[in-house]
Amino acid sequence: MSHTTPSDATSELDTFSPIAWRDGTLHLLDQTLLPEEERWIECRDVATVADAIRRLAVRGAPAIGVTAAYGLVVGLDGLGESADGLETRFDDVYRRLLETRPTAVNLRWALDQGREILERHRSDGIRAVRDALLERAQAIHQHDMVANRRMGDFGADLFTPGDRVLTHCNAGALATGGYGTAVGVITSAYRAGRVGQVWVDETRPLLQGARLTAWELSRQDIPHRLVTDSSVGALMSRRLVDRVVVGADRIAMNGDVANKIGTYTVAVLAARHGVPFYVAAPLSTIDPRTPTGDEIPIEERDSQEITSFAGSAVAPDSTLGQNFAFDVTPHELVSAIITEVGVLGPPFEVSIDQAMSNA
Amino acid sequence: MSHTTPSDATSELDTFSPIAWRDGTLHLLDQTLLPEEERWIECRDVATVADAIRRLAVRGAPAIGVTAAYGLVVGLDGLGESADGLETRFDDVYRRLLETRPTAVNLRWALDQGREILERHRSDGIRAVRDALLERAQAIHQHDMVANRRMGDFGADLFTPGDRVLTHCNAGALATGGYGTAVGVITSAYRAGRVGQVWVDETRPLLQGARLTAWELSRQDIPHRLVTDSSVGALMSRRLVDRVVVGADRIAMNGDVANKIGTYTVAVLAARHGVPFYVAAPLSTIDPRTPTGDEIPIEERDSQEITSFAGSAVAPDSTLGQNFAFDVTPHELVSAIITEVGVLGPPFEVSIDQAMSNA
Repeated sequence: MSHTTPSDATSELDTFSPIAWRDGTLHLLDQTLLPEEERWIECRDVATVADAIRRLAVRGAPAIGVTAAYGLVVGLDGLGESADGLETRFDDVYRRLLETRPTAVNLRWALDQGREILERHRSDGIRAVRDALLERAQAIHQHDMVANRRMGDFGADLFTPGDRVLTHCNAGALATGGYGTAVGVITSAYRAGRVGQVWVDETRPLLQGARLTAWELSRQDIPHRLVTDSSVGALMSRRLVDRVVVGADRIAMNGDVANKIGTYTVAVLAARHGVPFYVAAPLSTIDPRTPTGDEIPIEERDSQEITSFAGSAVAPDSTLGQNFAFDVTPHELVSAIITEVGVLGPPFEVSIDQAMSNA
Repeated sequence: MSHTTPSDATSELDTFSPIAWRDGTLHLLDQTLLPEEERWIECRDVATVADAIRRLAVRGAPAIGVTAAYGLVVGLDGLGESADGLETRFDDVYRRLLETRPTAVNLRWALDQGREILERHRSDGIRAVRDALLERAQAIHQHDMVANRRMGDFGADLFTPGDRVLTHCNAGALATGGYGTAVGVITSAYRAGRVGQVWVDETRPLLQGARLTAWELSRQDIPHRLVTDSSVGALMSRRLVDRVVVGADRIAMNGDVANKIGTYTVAVLAARHGVPFYVAAPLSTIDPRTPTGDEIPIEERDSQEITSFAGSAVAPDSTLGQNFAFDVTPHELVSAIITEVGVLGPPFEVSIDQAMSNA
């Protein structure tokens, strides 16, 4: 991997980010091509950024937030030095980025920070606005990596040596500014000698577990096995899973968690088998405007993601798929939420409110 | 479809079988090629039959039983008229067929009927044995189709108009001698005006839901939608599923059910959401020698079925999969077992014992 961000970490893997600001523009690792190919997308206009988010070249709530923050800068570039049209352009760029995906709240969270900056700096001219936006994007990016390291430390304390931990989808470095949320916790726990093996759900339809999480764990030599999503019940009934840790796309104020489709199923099984179910996410994933999971919009994606595979049909032509991209896990199935300010436990209405007030 | 078996049914679809005895030999529809291509395998030796079972060209417990019964005839062909070596050959053929797959009990059930026939007719010479084996295979085949029709009638009575029913894997005509168990029940219920829509789990890793069940439902114009296995929780929490019906590979005497991996997960979700969970299977799938699910051997298949797709890797080279082919659903999660002699309810220890004693 050629693009890394300097930090005080111990290895290149700690500092790997799928998002890089380099030579004055945004570069995104095209995750749709992994693990086969590592190709970077150079984003010279907002259309390219929006397209990358929409087709999941960059995905994962924190990574989408970081990308959107940089996307505002990309969107203002080429506007010239005059402030004429700045507001119109900003509104257009904001809207085009916001429209890409409905569920991850980090997207709006990052864009709204950009709007505040616009309002604060608009009288200073376009260059000042652009520079402040870039500075904020880099700060969001850097903060995300640091937050993930903290989550890793807090989360690792929950593990005991030899734990077999299951994760769903990819909440790793690829899904964030770097290091990862759920995979970050697993990485920290592994380095603390507390992880015996990781079970990786393949995560249909787009196989983020097989393509991305297994790729990240392989690069770090963390022992893991890939399973189909439907194997989780069998693994748990054979007592082969000690803990579950997943990421989140949005957390409601009562602790309900929207995450990749299939997360709810894993949570129900974990509850039945007495397996702790942890969610690792930065505070930016908790949405003060979302009281409960019922208010979280769930993206529905193209039926063809299910009915075909790598361009080949796997179902009859007349068969349609139903492709919910996320589901909601009710808070009563969540054992703890691991954040950068500490581990939140039930009742989540209280612990979340407290954490958000102190932040 | 060119090969059908005559019956009193109302349409060609009712009489479709993936297994045909034609021109003095066994023909099997190669289900690994569906839905793209309908190609039949002509089985001139037992190696071809065993290979077809092992690589899932023919699959589904009842279909494996029927195939094994015909397989004994194929295995004895070419032995000449003398009875010399008959026992040795029979033992070899029996063993080669039995070894193919460990979980489906119908395999041993059919082979043991063949052994009884050998013992009864061995003194009459090889031709008499062979003819009696063929007659029994055809009877097993025919009985299976009739049993499935009965299951359909019994099962349809459990439905109410508009029901949205979910099924996992393929327990259709393709998995049986014809008509299907779970899909047979759905077909009968649909014809009785009681099915609004079918949810089809794609069933990773080999996509029997997408490739086979969707194919069967499409051919019958039964409204259906394909979903990833991990979507079942989301569907149920949105109250989009009224009933579940699945097949079985082996049922223990206490009502524990071995079926395709993922079935247990569906059953746990159904129990949580109060959705009735039915198993449709002929009595030949209930094993008197298996007291509980703990005694059912679970096949583990090649890791590559998970780590690659249609010949392309979907995970890093160093990543291994864990590929349990089946799981066990404990009887307390089963609402009813639909058989050809009626619907069995809990306590299953009693109802199964009664049904088996009367059979």
